[in-house]
Amino acid sequence: MSTQYKRIKEEAYAANMRLPELGLVLFTFGNASVADHDQGVFAIKPSGVDYPQLRPDDMVIVDFDGNTISGDLRPSSDTKTHAVLYKHWPKIGGIVHTHSQYATAWAQSQRDIPLYGTTHADHLTTDIPCAPPMEDAMIAGNYEYETGFQILNHFEQQGLDYEEVEMILVANHAPFTWGKTGDKAVYNSAVLEYVAKMALFTEQIQPNAARMKDALIKKHYERKHGAGSYYGQ
Amino acid sequence: MSTQYKRIKEEAYAANMRLPELGLVLFTFGNASVADHDQGVFAIKPSGVDYPQLRPDDMVIVDFDGNTISGDLRPSSDTKTHAVLYKHWPKIGGIVHTHSQYATAWAQSQRDIPLYGTTHADHLTTDIPCAPPMEDAMIAGNYEYETGFQILNHFEQQGLDYEEVEMILVANHAPFTWGKTGDKAVYNSAVLEYVAKMALFTEQIQPNAARMKDALIKKHYERKHGAGSYYGQ
Amino acid sequence: MSTQYKRIKEEAYAANMRLPELGLVLFTFGNASVADHDQGVFAIKPSGVDYPQLRPDDMVIVDFDGNTISGDLRPSSDTKTHAVLYKHWPKIGGIVHTHSQYATAWAQSQRDIPLYGTTHADHLTTDIPCAPPMEDAMIAGNYEYETGFQILNHFEQQGLDYEEVEMILVANHAPFTWGKTGDKAVYNSAVLEYVAKMALFTEQIQPNAARMKDALIKKHYERKHGAGSYYGQ
Amino acid sequence: MSTQYKRIKEEAYAANMRLPELGLVLFTFGNASVADHDQGVFAIKPSGVDYPQLRPDDMVIVDFDGNTISGDLRPSSDTKTHAVLYKHWPKIGGIVHTHSQYATAWAQSQRDIPLYGTTHADHLTTDIPCAPPMEDAMIAGNYEYETGFQILNHFEQQGLDYEEVEMILVANHAPFTWGKTGDKAVYNSAVLEYVAKMALFTEQIQPNAARMKDALIKKHYERKHGAGSYYGQ
Repeated sequence: MSTQYKRIKEEAYAANMRLPELGLVLFTFGNASVADHDQGVFAIKPSGVDYPQLRPDDMVIVDFDGNTISGDLRPSSDTKTHAVLYKHWPKIGGIVHTHSQYATAWAQSQRDIPLYGTTHADHLTTDIPCAPPMEDAMIAGNYEYETGFQILNHFEQQGLDYEEVEMILVANHAPFTWGKTGDKAVYNSAVLEYVAKMALFTEQIQPNAARMKDALIKKHYERKHGAGSYYGQ
Repeated sequence: MSTQYKRIKEEAYAANMRLPELGLVLFTFGNASVADHDQGVFAIKPSGVDYPQLRPDDMVIVDFDGNTISGDLRPSSDTKTHAVLYKHWPKIGGIVHTHSQYATAWAQSQRDIPLYGTTHADHLTTDIPCAPPMEDAMIAGNYEYETGFQILNHFEQQGLDYEEVEMILVANHAPFTWGKTGDKAVYNSAVLEYVAKMALFTEQIQPNAARMKDALIKKHYERKHGAGSYYGQ
Repeated sequence: MSTQYKRIKEEAYAANMRLPELGLVLFTFGNASVADHDQGVFAIKPSGVDYPQLRPDDMVIVDFDGNTISGDLRPSSDTKTHAVLYKHWPKIGGIVHTHSQYATAWAQSQRDIPLYGTTHADHLTTDIPCAPPMEDAMIAGNYEYETGFQILNHFEQQGLDYEEVEMILVANHAPFTWGKTGDKAVYNSAVLEYVAKMALFTEQIQPNAARMKDALIKKHYERKHGAGSYYGQ
Repeated sequence: MSTQYKRIKEEAYAANMRLPELGLVLFTFGNASVADHDQGVFAIKPSGVDYPQLRPDDMVIVDFDGNTISGDLRPSSDTKTHAVLYKHWPKIGGIVHTHSQYATAWAQSQRDIPLYGTTHADHLTTDIPCAPPMEDAMIAGNYEYETGFQILNHFEQQGLDYEEVEMILVANHAPFTWGKTGDKAVYNSAVLEYVAKMALFTEQIQPNAARMKDALIKKHYERKHGAGSYYGQ
């Protein structure tokens, strides 16, 4: 492997391999990428290749306009969505897309996931947003590219900050998560699935369940984030 | 093993062994077969044999009228259903029958599985059909043979194409899936279970969940199928 | 190990060890026994011993009145229930008691499990019965002994045959299953859990789900049982 | 490792490692501690360290006022909650905190878990209590310290005995369990999750499910606890 893309290929490979381990993908229903913003490229899983066959050097190098720069295989069919996000959100280093079961069910329901507890608030202080279905013209056009803009536009309209809210559901589709690294994006996909599952159970136990109080949301988020955080080493 | 049926025996064995690995069968509640249309026969799992004991050479060779051609063991009790499908649908090379839990629950509910998201649309553009319960006379007669015709008739009445819709639920019974190969039929059984599970969760999260819009159904199906497809290598 | 009880000790040990493998017990929440009707005794798991520590020779030998005949350990706290069933039902060779999650939830709901599909009908032609809660006097008295009679009485009142219906739920408690052998009793516990799970999902998908039609119940049961059966080898 | 804290470090390590094995934690969402009341200290998991990296000597030694006595790493962010409980409840030797999915969903629903069956009654004779959300001032102040008092106060107000009821849900947060040893506290966390899961299923099967009758609650608890107990060896 040439050294130019070695780091992002290896990190993207590792991130992809974590997805089936964490029970987040069936067959090839997911993809992870890792970016190098200095070189303006990212490494992403090739399309439709089974995880057991995957090798680090199979990762495809793509620029932030979605052009393949290096690699023998065709990149993930969702590549342009990744490209749009990297181009507009300069501080993210990894993106993960899965069809994990509970998060996808919320996406199919076109509902934001309400903030019901501290597990959720440890990671973000808002409901987990669900972007609305795209207009027919966007779907018929450059679909995966437009999916990226659907995500960007929803964040802008809702006044969300991509460095604080590192996950979204796309209506009738599935979740996307991101983070400063590929590892963090994978972590966020697992957290999202866990929170999505507990939110469904919560509504089944108590159909009138209320969002958690603001004071507790603020406290839990600040335990893990910002200047006064005291979680971890 | 004689060479005449070697390929289909080995492929049928491999397909059967994948079913417990994928969590689709308990004990012996399932069977897979692989056909050789040139010879007019298929290899199928013997009835009631536990998976750990199964060997490739145990597969029973049966013709498309359901007669055993070769093999020391009695074939699966569902053999005639497989025979009817192979006889009338010349382009399928493999069939799988399971009692996987979520798909079977939909069958027991006598409901088609609504198309709620892209995971479903990546594989077919219609709801997953549920054939109605059979008439008493058909049940009391040549039951497994008639089950095959129940499937054929439902596809004809609904105007479905077996090359596009590779799965069905039989009311109060369980799913059948098929495909060009045994591998593809197994894959379809796992996809069906995954989609069935998410469809239930979707209705639990949003009791008024709506089917996905047509433009998105069309787009996702065409990403993976037909002349303009761009998924996979 | 003396040879007198060797067979039933080994079979009871094997049956007990299958329970955690099949996901039917947490910690020590279950027990299996195997009877020797000629000697009028059965071998049963000692009370509260963790599965990884269990050895065949730990099985306790008890007679059909519940007296310990041989063994260094105290037998399962449910021993007298097993004794009553062996004493009155001479054709059963094994009994299993678990707190498996879905079957236990039906028991806690005090509902019979409706016959919704062929997976159920392959094993019995009636709903899975749930015995009502015991009278306070029976509970305060010889509780585990009376639990056995609660089961016997419910079968008699409902006109059920213990050789055809090999399982019951005891209200607010949990399931008991039995069979000609310890293996068959274990098998029945796994089938019950599987059917209990799918019955809940069925009602969630279709709140007005109907019992399966009689013709299909009869057909599926007769495929596996009786003179004209044609399932298995 | 110095011998002074060797026992509690090793027991705390073992208790922590059991949590992912039992499926009770994702990533680092949980912590276990073990106390030495003679020395007035407890050993607790360091904050945010992944389980595969954890070693016995990483356990942090903390006194019952929450001061770190020994250790190179920062203790769990929930340390002060553990400290308060050890200080006021002298007979507990271990505490476990998880975000296990079903128990946490009940906490998010702000509901006690009703006593629906013998699995629950084998361990406690009351509903599993859920402490109400804390006042904003308590949250903004010394939050984890106040969480301990929220638990103590709820037990006092409800007239519960911490030696009989070894578990609680904290509203919108998650469960805490304890016991005479670290092992017992872990055991209680697994039992709580199991009971929480079956209680949800029970209400789904029977929305009007009733609490189990008192005579049966008393009987099952006394089988396992007190002078006349006859469960175990």
